[in-house]
Amino acid sequence: MLSAVLPNGNAAAAAAAAELFADGRFNPTAIVTEPVPPPVQSDKLDSPPAANGGKADKREIVLGRNVHTTCLEVTEPDADNESTGDKEAYMASVLARYRKTLVERTKYHLGYPYNLDFDYGDLSQLQHFSINNLGDPFIESNYGVHSRQFEVGVLDWFARLWDIEKDEYWGYITNCGTEGNLHGILVGREVFPDGILYASRESHYSVFKAARMYRMECEKVNTLITGEIDCADFKMKLLPNKDKPAIINVNIGTTVKGAVDDLDLVIQTLEECGYSHNRFYIHCDGALFGLMMPFVKRAPKVSFKKPIGSVSVSGHKFVGCPMPCGVQLTRLDHINALSSNVEYLASRDATIMGSRNGHAPIFLWYTLNRKGYKGFQKEVQKCLRNAHYLKDKLRGAGISAMLNELSSTVVFERPKDEEFVRRWQLACERNMSHVVVMPSVTVEKLDCFLDELIQARSVWYEGGNSKPPCLAEDVGVSNCCCVLHK
Amino acid sequence: MLSAVLPNGNAAAAAAAAELFADGRFNPTAIVTEPVPPPVQSDKLDSPPAANGGKADKREIVLGRNVHTTCLEVTEPDADNESTGDKEAYMASVLARYRKTLVERTKYHLGYPYNLDFDYGDLSQLQHFSINNLGDPFIESNYGVHSRQFEVGVLDWFARLWDIEKDEYWGYITNCGTEGNLHGILVGREVFPDGILYASRESHYSVFKAARMYRMECEKVNTLITGEIDCADFKMKLLPNKDKPAIINVNIGTTVKGAVDDLDLVIQTLEECGYSHNRFYIHCDGALFGLMMPFVKRAPKVSFKKPIGSVSVSGHKFVGCPMPCGVQLTRLDHINALSSNVEYLASRDATIMGSRNGHAPIFLWYTLNRKGYKGFQKEVQKCLRNAHYLKDKLRGAGISAMLNELSSTVVFERPKDEEFVRRWQLACERNMSHVVVMPSVTVEKLDCFLDELIQARSVWYEGGNSKPPCLAEDVGVSNCCCVLHK
Repeated sequence: MLSAVLPNGNAAAAAAAAELFADGRFNPTAIVTEPVPPPVQSDKLDSPPAANGGKADKREIVLGRNVHTTCLEVTEPDADNESTGDKEAYMASVLARYRKTLVERTKYHLGYPYNLDFDYGDLSQLQHFSINNLGDPFIESNYGVHSRQFEVGVLDWFARLWDIEKDEYWGYITNCGTEGNLHGILVGREVFPDGILYASRESHYSVFKAARMYRMECEKVNTLITGEIDCADFKMKLLPNKDKPAIINVNIGTTVKGAVDDLDLVIQTLEECGYSHNRFYIHCDGALFGLMMPFVKRAPKVSFKKPIGSVSVSGHKFVGCPMPCGVQLTRLDHINALSSNVEYLASRDATIMGSRNGHAPIFLWYTLNRKGYKGFQKEVQKCLRNAHYLKDKLRGAGISAMLNELSSTVVFERPKDEEFVRRWQLACERNMSHVVVMPSVTVEKLDCFLDELIQARSVWYEGGNSKPPCLAEDVGVSNCCCVLHK
Repeated sequence: MLSAVLPNGNAAAAAAAAELFADGRFNPTAIVTEPVPPPVQSDKLDSPPAANGGKADKREIVLGRNVHTTCLEVTEPDADNESTGDKEAYMASVLARYRKTLVERTKYHLGYPYNLDFDYGDLSQLQHFSINNLGDPFIESNYGVHSRQFEVGVLDWFARLWDIEKDEYWGYITNCGTEGNLHGILVGREVFPDGILYASRESHYSVFKAARMYRMECEKVNTLITGEIDCADFKMKLLPNKDKPAIINVNIGTTVKGAVDDLDLVIQTLEECGYSHNRFYIHCDGALFGLMMPFVKRAPKVSFKKPIGSVSVSGHKFVGCPMPCGVQLTRLDHINALSSNVEYLASRDATIMGSRNGHAPIFLWYTLNRKGYKGFQKEVQKCLRNAHYLKDKLRGAGISAMLNELSSTVVFERPKDEEFVRRWQLACERNMSHVVVMPSVTVEKLDCFLDELIQARSVWYEGGNSKPPCLAEDVGVSNCCCVLHK
């Protein structure tokens, strides 16, 4: 009896099946005899150009080339590997060297908004399990190795932070800030299919990626020198489009300047332009500051008591987590419109991703429990204080610098030397660089950085052959210390 | 000197800034004094309905409710916690209980295509680091705590498997199979903005989600009883749309039946309908079998020597990984059209996600190095053999069952009792259930499952009051053992 199904019109597969299951029995010789694929021709790769060129001043983005210079090749185990243990030893040495690099790179890091100070040793036992919260956090899937109980606990904590009742919100733990924005904007588009997306030009690039992915009309709104959305320009962009609903991305901390858009003023502007609350959808991109603002007195409050549709925040930033993750919250009634049921999962499909990392919720649950709202408040206070310290020291040394109120992102003159930028892992744009003061950034680390920067600048700009850049256009005249403006 | 920038038109923030930085100095009292938000009104939640209702036979999907029954609440640490250690003890006990559940749930698992058998103990030291491959794998970002060297090594391994040269492919490690499909279909749409998406109706739900997200015209193609795409119907759908390019999702292993679409026949059908190679884009969804097919002799080969645009495969499925991940490969020339440069990252933006899990590539690198192509071949052989064993035993016991050639997914009669389904974590659709035979599924586990199933069926169907369901429509008359067809 040949019980394997023979498809119509597929001769090759049928032949393969006949071979695999000759006489209805599994035939192990049907497996390929030489599993190692021949190497694909690759001789063009002998001398790949380095991604960074050799140029000191400018880092080139090499499009159209795949750079394999630092690649750790995967090699086939030797036949006698089990007896010699050579490969085991090789891998152990690779990992030991890699660990050393990680320690060193973690030590000299200032530019990205990641809290690198965490200890999840208690959770290392969980790495043995394939934990997957596939589908919806609030509907159990048939897959039993999940961590929904932790995930929902974390979501509830954020729901309380952002003022929304348990049975009125829906949310999930995402893979990163981008997924939060992709989800929030998608929900907005499903609520208002012909809505126009408005976002300040200093919004995260994922916002504009979403517009392109989702084929949405998109209006870029100008910003103030702080990086905040310019509501006068917002009004100008809104008025000619009054026939279409508005979907707005509000930044609770922009990427480069750490500027906080004034949510209340955005809502007021919409109202003044004649948009009723059922004609707009606001997504708050709180990737970094979404977890800091609630602890700063009189900061524009992110709250679902206001007419907003969704909020996202990253988990690997202020909280700190081994891998990127985020929290996405929206109103439950929006989700019921968006989602479709997937019987296979015994769930509804309302997340962007299907399979979802079940470890991230446990990391977050662990830290939230240990620190609590009070612990985060203390850390916010420390970060704001240290950011102020850094800004004062920079300005004291005659270096252009800006620190937005309500922010721990210190923007300053871009260092002239790319090697210096890489050493401290600074993010740069035009003439600006920034340090994001996270809980892992101590005064000692800042002092070390300041010493090195001041030392290096004395070399870069000695003799007067070259001058520090002007940052007036980037951070305003009052924050610029260039020759002209100091 | 008040150096914090005062934005125009934002009185609240200005006032907050003035308070925070009174006299230009950081004022710690500007931090909120009571950081714990008041509980949001939640009295409606006292008696939430259980997700599974109380009903034995049918699992209800409760849309419009957030079910918090199993939630592990995050609580604020007590003021005296550090002295008493109560909270530490509580958390340790939660985690110990959770670990026990994971062990038990991992033991009784058959329904999802996850290889739960892995040991990454050597890598546990890496959990201390915030490893993030943000941006493009081939362009170093300024963030130094990354694992691109491992990621590119893994990608090269897959490039060799799928026949594409190092300087002709582009790819990245994704968060899951869905991200691979979202990326592949997006690349297809960017190559052919007015292309129509064709996918068999048994394609993964993420394919249709992509069509909706990307606002693409989408044609669902019928399937054969095996689950494979029906190329006769495909032809019928193609012919009236010849004025528009075609974007095709080809399944290398469907979700429910593990059916492998015949890639060669799909290409032949396109050619017969007059589509030249520059008028179509094929994405191969190889979530599960993308890594198994290469080792089965004469299986339709997935290869970039053929006119395909992209291939994706999951990392947490056949390879096995603590968290979901996947590999996405496409042609480099497609990516150069898609991507835009992001100065902030010193990179191009060609991935769906921005921040990316840097641990997943290391897990994959580790397993690929240890097993090699030869190790995977052996595991494929074992899985196919065990799947055949299970199917034979089921049919021998008079239970409807189907096993596609080239597949380790055994489809069989849906168990009557939902408790049984949950115990073995089976995925179900209509009258079907399935077991996906992964490397972690041993003959002993299958025997245990078979014993329980046969035992349970004798209770469900004793006395003849109720009869096993007919699966003729699902798996064909020849595989159905119902009263009518046996």
